Amino acid sequence: MGGADNRRSPAANNGNNTTRNLPLDPVINLDHGDPTMYETFWKKLGDECTVVIKGYESLSYFSNPKNPCWFLEPKLEDSIKCLHDAVGNAVTEGYSIVVGTGSSQLLQAVLYAVTSHDQPSQINVVAAAPYYSSYLEILDLVRSGLYKWAGDAHEFNKNEPYIELVTSPNNPSGVIRGPVVNRDGGVLVHDLAYYWPQYTPITSKLDFDIMLFTASKCTGHAGSRIGWALVKDKEVAKKMTKFMEVSTIGVAKEPQLRIAKILQVVADRCKRFGSPEGDNFFEFSKNMLAKRWEVLRETAKKSEMFILPKYPLQHCNYYGEITHINPGTENYLIMVTAFAWIKCKDEIEDCEKLFRSHNILTRSGRRFGSDPGFVRVSMVGRDEEFNMFIDRLSKIQDL
Amino acid sequence: MGGADNRRSPAANNGNNTTRNLPLDPVINLDHGDPTMYETFWKKLGDECTVVIKGYESLSYFSNPKNPCWFLEPKLEDSIKCLHDAVGNAVTEGYSIVVGTGSSQLLQAVLYAVTSHDQPSQINVVAAAPYYSSYLEILDLVRSGLYKWAGDAHEFNKNEPYIELVTSPNNPSGVIRGPVVNRDGGVLVHDLAYYWPQYTPITSKLDFDIMLFTASKCTGHAGSRIGWALVKDKEVAKKMTKFMEVSTIGVAKEPQLRIAKILQVVADRCKRFGSPEGDNFFEFSKNMLAKRWEVLRETAKKSEMFILPKYPLQHCNYYGEITHINPGTENYLIMVTAFAWIKCKDEIEDCEKLFRSHNILTRSGRRFGSDPGFVRVSMVGRDEEFNMFIDRLSKIQDL
Repeated sequence: MGGADNRRSPAANNGNNTTRNLPLDPVINLDHGDPTMYETFWKKLGDECTVVIKGYESLSYFSNPKNPCWFLEPKLEDSIKCLHDAVGNAVTEGYSIVVGTGSSQLLQAVLYAVTSHDQPSQINVVAAAPYYSSYLEILDLVRSGLYKWAGDAHEFNKNEPYIELVTSPNNPSGVIRGPVVNRDGGVLVHDLAYYWPQYTPITSKLDFDIMLFTASKCTGHAGSRIGWALVKDKEVAKKMTKFMEVSTIGVAKEPQLRIAKILQVVADRCKRFGSPEGDNFFEFSKNMLAKRWEVLRETAKKSEMFILPKYPLQHCNYYGEITHINPGTENYLIMVTAFAWIKCKDEIEDCEKLFRSHNILTRSGRRFGSDPGFVRVSMVGRDEEFNMFIDRLSKIQDL
Repeated sequence: MGGADNRRSPAANNGNNTTRNLPLDPVINLDHGDPTMYETFWKKLGDECTVVIKGYESLSYFSNPKNPCWFLEPKLEDSIKCLHDAVGNAVTEGYSIVVGTGSSQLLQAVLYAVTSHDQPSQINVVAAAPYYSSYLEILDLVRSGLYKWAGDAHEFNKNEPYIELVTSPNNPSGVIRGPVVNRDGGVLVHDLAYYWPQYTPITSKLDFDIMLFTASKCTGHAGSRIGWALVKDKEVAKKMTKFMEVSTIGVAKEPQLRIAKILQVVADRCKRFGSPEGDNFFEFSKNMLAKRWEVLRETAKKSEMFILPKYPLQHCNYYGEITHINPGTENYLIMVTAFAWIKCKDEIEDCEKLFRSHNILTRSGRRFGSDPGFVRVSMVGRDEEFNMFIDRLSKIQDL
């Protein structure tokens, strides 16, 4: 799901107190996962993904009256299916596709769809800590009578119906996860925003009941606010559509048409590996992220101040196909996540505070239901930003 | 606010039973206010409103970190101010602008912003009947603990805090309205979706605390899902922004950039009256609607089956300026609303049922907290649709 900061908006950083310590250093905001890193690839591709929309187009509320999800652009539906088939990360056959204003809205649509106005009490919603910090904000937003945030799935011991949000790869920690509660009467919602080949090995074609994806993390087009849900049960998909009807009367057409084009371009090229044009989006992004992780790991190792997570090597079905013709693609099998989940050495109790004193805004482990000794740091910002971050990180040891 | 049908989506009309009566007549859906009428104008204008968006543009979540509403495109903010100033329908100076995914989402943001998580009980939300049918659906959507739908404002007699939704011109009835409850401890939200010169005389530059507008009804671009709120209190605007952050992490950039261009084009031409190019959007649309209303009134008169509302003649500050140089502009002072609020003659108890038996889908007065002897009929569909409607309407008398 989207990683934009919901507490410390950029506005809140103007005149941030911490800047007084080092007035010459600008504040680097790595708190939210703004995927501007991907601009490099899309600039390289030139006009191929340019969309042109005329003044008289897309006036209607409706995209396809024949589709139960009547506001879903047919072209977007096609390229979503096409991309999942090409990458092999999720089954689309037999699934209904519901489009949303980002996957945050789709999560709310799911909660509406799997609960009932007649139920005696609110349904518990849990996620295993460390969990995506926005979940609890979304759950608590308007004090819904349908559902309530029930915290860390590891500690859920009520004998009541529940909904478990399974984020895999996990935000913030990047690890591959499955359900934790595993009890009858539970509904599982799989948030797969990061289950794409630039971040993690694609180990199987997933076919869960409810799967959430978003363009923000797939292609980096966070500003378009386009998410989609793959939903097995047609009735659940219909109720989700109803939620979108009432809450926003559907989803804007322009970003749907744009993302349709972009996903198609990504799909068309994603089987060409090691091409001199470097026009395979996943390959290009994976390499870019891998380089950043290498630099980060080196810097952390030198400073002896920070511990980074270790990820298991896994075979990737997507890159795996070409391992034999392209030696050295073992590299492709290391996970390089969109966020660094950093633990400070034990003497440091508040890692976020330490970073802040160096004008680096991160998100504290506390926000994820975890330990303030951890911070989440975005790895998908622009180069200048990342290089400044590394430079400052290397100096923290001197304090 | 948006007029799309939230109960009978087009999908639900496929195989609609009523079609069995007259298998040769296609179903005309005038239930929702899909503003496709405006395509004629935008086609005429050609490429002037064409937007071109490159693949690498607008990747970030952020539009303007310096603005408390950090996801509002600066160009959109400028053209919103420019259009209101040119038309003279609302004050923008000293107001914060919050953009939303249509004004439905902005209404939810307002409800969040003016209520509190600490309040002892839900705040009552009322609107004078006949009220926009989506209000109660929005209010009841997730059973919020912050607010609850309390029905017709005329019948609200609790001595409790309340929020009154004032829709002016009103949807469905088109009449100009003010608050009804008028008690201390009330918050007023003005839904001004139809306060534009093609629908109603602009009698004053409004300066209410919270004013909602939407591109859907202003320019007909319903598919773009762009609404905006003019908010006097900066703290309320901040809380509204927070709601948008959590519920959808802001608003898509593409439709913001497109609507920015379209509103600017409308503003630039809206002072040129009677130009041979006919490129004044409001003048063109007003004339188109006025012709339709003339035909509808004639047809209703002949059939003696239906009663249409009578609206007072009022001076329009917008057209008024040119009355002296352009004789006959008295016509401009008749209200021609986006919906016809039709009353069937007394013998007919269920007007919606009567229309349905002629394959005309309308929205029953019941849905608006009113009498089933009324229906709301969209006047802003395509010509073919409107002409078919008139043709069938003229035949109903024969039954």
